[in-house]
Formats: sequence, structure tokens, C-alpha cells
Amino acid sequence: MSKGFLLVLSGPSGSGKGTVSEALMKRNDNISFSTSVTTRMPRPGEVNGENYFFTSIDEFETMVEQDELLEYAFVHTNYYGTPKKFVFDEIEKGEIVLLEIDVQGALQVKERYKEAVFIFLLPPTMAELKNRLILRDTETEEEINTRFKNAFKELDFVGEYDYFVVNNKVENAVHNIETIIEAEKLRVKRHKDIKAEVMMEKGEIE
Amino acid sequence: MSKGFLLVLSGPSGSGKGTVSEALMKRNDNISFSTSVTTRMPRPGEVNGENYFFTSIDEFETMVEQDELLEYAFVHTNYYGTPKKFVFDEIEKGEIVLLEIDVQGALQVKERYKEAVFIFLLPPTMAELKNRLILRDTETEEEINTRFKNAFKELDFVGEYDYFVVNNKVENAVHNIETIIEAEKLRVKRHKDIKAEVMMEKGEIE
Repeated sequence: MSKGFLLVLSGPSGSGKGTVSEALMKRNDNISFSTSVTTRMPRPGEVNGENYFFTSIDEFETMVEQDELLEYAFVHTNYYGTPKKFVFDEIEKGEIVLLEIDVQGALQVKERYKEAVFIFLLPPTMAELKNRLILRDTETEEEINTRFKNAFKELDFVGEYDYFVVNNKVENAVHNIETIIEAEKLRVKRHKDIKAEVMMEKGEIE
Repeated sequence: MSKGFLLVLSGPSGSGKGTVSEALMKRNDNISFSTSVTTRMPRPGEVNGENYFFTSIDEFETMVEQDELLEYAFVHTNYYGTPKKFVFDEIEKGEIVLLEIDVQGALQVKERYKEAVFIFLLPPTMAELKNRLILRDTETEEEINTRFKNAFKELDFVGEYDYFVVNNKVENAVHNIETIIEAEKLRVKRHKDIKAEVMMEKGEIE
């Protein structure tokens, strides 16, 4: 009876949104992961429509022009975006669609589709966030500092979100997100006609 | 760090809001029950400021004029109302204040204080609602029919509420209300300055 919804899980780099998303998906069969569209070439083993929707630059730019994307970005030499059609089809089926995305992307989604549920994932402290950026060990000190400064600035956008979840432990963060999902399912606005639902059951209304 | 909020639990008579409120209070120490103000005389054993705030008709009417009530009603020969001061003082302390109230009262609260969280308690079916009205065994058949018709009409107002909870079993209803409370605590708008909170912790921000 209930429609699904888009769950946007977002936060600065180092907040742990990738790890939390993965743990959340593992524990919940009824959540679909939003599939992005990209112009980059498929890597060996990647399946079109599963890992990504692979497309040409021309096709991608047409999608942008025709307002078919919830958000998009140009990273290095490739486009990445979130197709509306995939998300809205899943929602219509009653699915919860998870979109894990950076803060800039989430703000784009909010402009185009404010009906989504926006969760900001926070590091427990800024010191812990810096630790996590250092522990990745894949970036130079300069890159780490840039990411840290960006994270600091991005905290200003938490006011644009519906909920915040502190990622002190992955299990706690996942539990809090599950609580938000359960509560959102009980929202009146996600049901078409509650009176009809109550009256239909057993059809015993006089 | 988080502010409290007013939780308005409402529904037609026979939805079971009294029983659910009692079970919810028993399991949650951090919920305060909203204390009403009334012009009726205290019964033996009733304590002013605990069971009710007892007041005179003059004083009550002054409260109405000065907009000091979230809602009020005149029942038989007495006034009953919900004082803003009590509710807002508790919220400021971080408490969750439970107001169990009929649909007309909830709609009055919504007009004056839409920041509250509004939950509509539903009977599982209309047949079950009628059963419950009959089982009370305190009313004539005519009174039961009137209440049933009112309940039927009141379902039209579910769209004014934030959440709905089906009271098929008291434990399930209480669990769902607890889930809503937990999620509402994670709302960005209930926190003054999340960025400051993240940065203050351990004060390790550079």
C-alpha cells in the first residue's frame, strides 16, 4: 500500500558513507542501490544495468538537457549521474532506493527532488575524520588537507538535510538509519488513502 | 544538546489511545505526560500540578484570551485545556511531552503549534473499532452509534498528521511510536548547531 522513497545518504569524505551503505544493504533485502549512469568504459566483469548504465557522451548530454538526471558530475574525463527513471520506477514498486553520494550531489538532488529523505552522516569528531583520511593512505598530505578543509566547509550544509547520523560505530549508524527508514514508512504522506485502507480490510464497514 | 518535542497522540474514540499512552509511559522514563488545566473541582486524592492544574473559570478564560493554551474544550460544565508554559518548559529541558487527545483537540494544537509531532492512531479495521466501542459497555446503543459515526468522519483528518500507527496490538503500536520518537531525535531541525557539536567534542579541531 505504501510507496517507496529515495534515501540519500551523504556526508563529507571520511564520514564513512561507503562502509555504512554497504553494511546497510547487507542487512536489508528491501533496499535497492541506486544505479548510476556513466560515460566511462566498463571495466572487465562490469555488467551494464548492474554496476552502471554505460552510455556515450552524446547520450549523457542529451539526458542532462532533457532533465532526466537527479544529479550529475564530471569527474576527471567522465560523466556520472543518477537517472530519474531507475529511481522513480523502483519507488513506484514500493522499494526504498539508497543513493550514497557526496554533499554537492545531495544538494543537486534536493533542488530537483525534495521528496527524498536526506541523511547527513557525521564523523564523531573532526579529529577522527582527519584520522580516517590519513588511514586511507592513498593520498598525499596536501590531498588529505584539501579533503579535510572541504569536509569542514561541507558541515555548513547539514541544515539542508532532514536527519543526521553520527558514525561513531558502523553498527550504530546502520541501526539509526534503519530507525529512520521504519519511521518514514509510517508517514501519512507516503500513503495514498489511509481511510480507504482501514475500511477495505475485511470490508466490514457499514 | 537536542531539544525535546511535543508528541501529540490522537485518534477517534475506540482507537485505543488511552491504553497505548499508558503502555508507552510505562516503558519510557524520558517522556512527560502533558498536564491539563481544568476548572472542575479536584477529586479526593488529586494533587494540583500533578493530576491537573486546578483553576477558576475566570482564570481559565483569561488564559484563553491571552493565548496561553495549545487547545481547550468545554465539556459538560467544565473547561479543560493544555497550557503552553508547561509544555514549552519541558521541551526546553529536552523532554518529550506526550499529549493524548481527541482529533478536534489535535487539530487545534496543529493550528497553534505545528512544530509538534502528530501521530494518528488507527483501529485495525472499522469493525474492530465498533467492537471496542461496544465492549466498553458504558454507553447506550445510540451513544455507540454516534461515536462510530464520528470516528468514521474523523478519519478524514488523518492527512493533517505526520504519522499514522495502526493499533492492532498495543505492543506493536508502542514499538512504532518509539521508532518515531527515535527518528525524530535525529532530525536536524531539533538541534541548534550540529557543526558546533561535532567540533566541540574533545576540542581537537584545528
